[in-house]
Amino acid sequence: MVQWLSTASGAFEQEFVALLESKREASADVDEAVRAILEDVKARGDAALLDYTARFDRLQAASVNELKVSEAEISAAFERVDGETLKALELARDRIASHHARQMPRDDRYTDATGVELGSRWTAIGAVGLYVPGGTASYPSSVLMNAVPAKVAGVERIAMVVPSPDGTLNPLVLVAARLAGVEEIYRIGGAQAVGALAFGTQSIAPVHKIVGPGNAYVAAAKRRVFGTVGIDMIAGPSEILVVADGGNDPDWIAADLLSQAEHDESAQSILITDDGEFASAVAEAVERQLKLLPRGEIAGASWRNFGAVIVVESLDQAPALVDRIAPEHLELAVDDPDALLGQIRNAGAIFLGRHTPEAIGDYVGGSNHVLPTARSARFSSGLSVLDFVKRTSILRCNADNLRVLGPAAIALAEAEGLAGHGRSVAIRLNM
Amino acid sequence: MVQWLSTASGAFEQEFVALLESKREASADVDEAVRAILEDVKARGDAALLDYTARFDRLQAASVNELKVSEAEISAAFERVDGETLKALELARDRIASHHARQMPRDDRYTDATGVELGSRWTAIGAVGLYVPGGTASYPSSVLMNAVPAKVAGVERIAMVVPSPDGTLNPLVLVAARLAGVEEIYRIGGAQAVGALAFGTQSIAPVHKIVGPGNAYVAAAKRRVFGTVGIDMIAGPSEILVVADGGNDPDWIAADLLSQAEHDESAQSILITDDGEFASAVAEAVERQLKLLPRGEIAGASWRNFGAVIVVESLDQAPALVDRIAPEHLELAVDDPDALLGQIRNAGAIFLGRHTPEAIGDYVGGSNHVLPTARSARFSSGLSVLDFVKRTSILRCNADNLRVLGPAAIALAEAEGLAGHGRSVAIRLNM
Repeated sequence: MVQWLSTASGAFEQEFVALLESKREASADVDEAVRAILEDVKARGDAALLDYTARFDRLQAASVNELKVSEAEISAAFERVDGETLKALELARDRIASHHARQMPRDDRYTDATGVELGSRWTAIGAVGLYVPGGTASYPSSVLMNAVPAKVAGVERIAMVVPSPDGTLNPLVLVAARLAGVEEIYRIGGAQAVGALAFGTQSIAPVHKIVGPGNAYVAAAKRRVFGTVGIDMIAGPSEILVVADGGNDPDWIAADLLSQAEHDESAQSILITDDGEFASAVAEAVERQLKLLPRGEIAGASWRNFGAVIVVESLDQAPALVDRIAPEHLELAVDDPDALLGQIRNAGAIFLGRHTPEAIGDYVGGSNHVLPTARSARFSSGLSVLDFVKRTSILRCNADNLRVLGPAAIALAEAEGLAGHGRSVAIRLNM
Repeated sequence: MVQWLSTASGAFEQEFVALLESKREASADVDEAVRAILEDVKARGDAALLDYTARFDRLQAASVNELKVSEAEISAAFERVDGETLKALELARDRIASHHARQMPRDDRYTDATGVELGSRWTAIGAVGLYVPGGTASYPSSVLMNAVPAKVAGVERIAMVVPSPDGTLNPLVLVAARLAGVEEIYRIGGAQAVGALAFGTQSIAPVHKIVGPGNAYVAAAKRRVFGTVGIDMIAGPSEILVVADGGNDPDWIAADLLSQAEHDESAQSILITDDGEFASAVAEAVERQLKLLPRGEIAGASWRNFGAVIVVESLDQAPALVDRIAPEHLELAVDDPDALLGQIRNAGAIFLGRHTPEAIGDYVGGSNHVLPTARSARFSSGLSVLDFVKRTSILRCNADNLRVLGPAAIALAEAEGLAGHGRSVAIRLNM
């Protein structure tokens, strides 16, 4: 039975806080193992990489070059992908590219009233590493969602790593990489791959930032190399919050809740509705559909352990609850979603109306599916072109401007006890 | 004697790599102490905060309310600040505000050729915590650089914390906070203050993001609460790189190098020039000026231990070296700085020409002085309005759009083994 909350109940606030604070992830303590692997890769480079790949992926190679994916392998991967899937990947790639192109920030150079020249200049990060998980979580859509924005941003080098346990590699991942313009792919994974990207080895040049999802080892390795390189967010289990009135087909909403629940037993699906009967109908539809889903066991565990139905007296109560949950994905399945939208501040992505199931955004909507989880939409954003560029401030004074601004800088430097700062200005003013 | 490198030497590459890899910070191992403090603040709230403040700051208070800075204290602080410094702070505040207002990202809502509505919507973070160090590193300019962009972004609540060891508090910090519009200030600091902001206590509401510099305890605490709240970068010791030709006054360039060296013994000042005689003149000027500086001992230690002079055969070699150093601050003291600018990619802030000492940017230039250190300008940017807003993706399909895009989404979901994703689309298409 799924958790059932009602704003009409006196216990609501307490139950809602418990829901917000529920921990959904067992954090495996892998940090010490990861530390040792990273140190070894830093010290021994290629040799360490080959050792760990043999041990963890049961893949023997005489050199890192053997682990590099060849043109022939990519061609073979294209042969194995059917036409419909290839066309779908191309559609996704094109839609992601055109949406993300709009995110490219513009340089701003200007002269202010004092005559001082100021500016913000954006440049692409030089080299980015893209981690792609192996096995069942090896998703071609994730390759597109990470690599296409990097390309749009102008990143010159994308080095992709993907483990191939026992030699198996998802051909769709190679096809997606090629469609996104990735030219450098290694069959390596785990903390050792993160280390190779961060520190570089004899065969792999270091990158400046590492993005992409991974297991607990990969996440711990990314945390550890942060500083040496940039990293993207560390994503938690997926979440969906559906705000729906009684005018929806309960089967549609149940399908949406299950589309996230099927990701992972730790995923979380929540329904907020003002119609108790509709809520019951959705809960029944969930039970029916669970029996039909290939991943029904996973989805069922997620729904029973972390799912929730919140019945509100009025949908006017929804925005405040939404902002506290700060969901990764938010569906507003109501007649006038824009009215609700204007009252909501915290969500990674919002899907408007009854015909926008979240899964459209996972694949072909064009917006990014890498989104803030675990309530972090209160303070962070989904992946975008901005994650692959950086901004440099530009300042230019001439002798006249410096005479205008200099005395204030000197006064503040002296007030802060930093005479050397003041001196670098005063010496130019003959003060 | 400062380190001296020359691109004409066969040993240059090896020496340059050693310079890049030199560790400048002893990382105190404070993590276990910080973990315990954070746990205690989370569990006991106000009571823990009062205990640690009594213990570490020798400041007794019966309630957290007593630690809140009152209107009377702020008025008293204004009385203690001289007119010139106050005017300088106001000038800085206004220039920071107008520069940062230009950084505000615009929403983007549009309908694409398929008829799908897409968008990016920016909203301010609801509540931000601002950490301000106590003692000698209690800089009013840092208060402005952090609080003004948050205000420009539209952050509704800024909660500032600043320790007052033995009851002492820099009045300039209170004045700067008031000028920036900060209304909520607590005399608390250390890991306990970070914990209070992140988790909330009985008296202090939690925030969504914590920004501002601090010592090793504060940095460790920020790392630990990251996830519960957002954090800004963890700043390392300051750095300046000056690229100068022989046409500069050696005394000016020496003053610039020392303006960063005086911050901290771990600061780093580097000169790149194509004129060996000029380099020697700068090095001599540094020695002369060191004797005049109140913080000459600190600046001297920084210069001797981490300073460097790099003599290049031609300034054409400079951009590649700059990009590898990726300095926090870069001065281009040459006749045509724009020509060099176009070839440089990695720097936090760039100061153009002979009349733009870096210290102008620290105080009154208008751009932010919180900038990426320790080579992180390769992948990150200085503080800006973007650090105080977050983006929500928006997507809307109608029944027609869904018929166009749906089949591709279903194909990809099935290719990834996520039938539930496909089902949430198919059910709306009667498939």
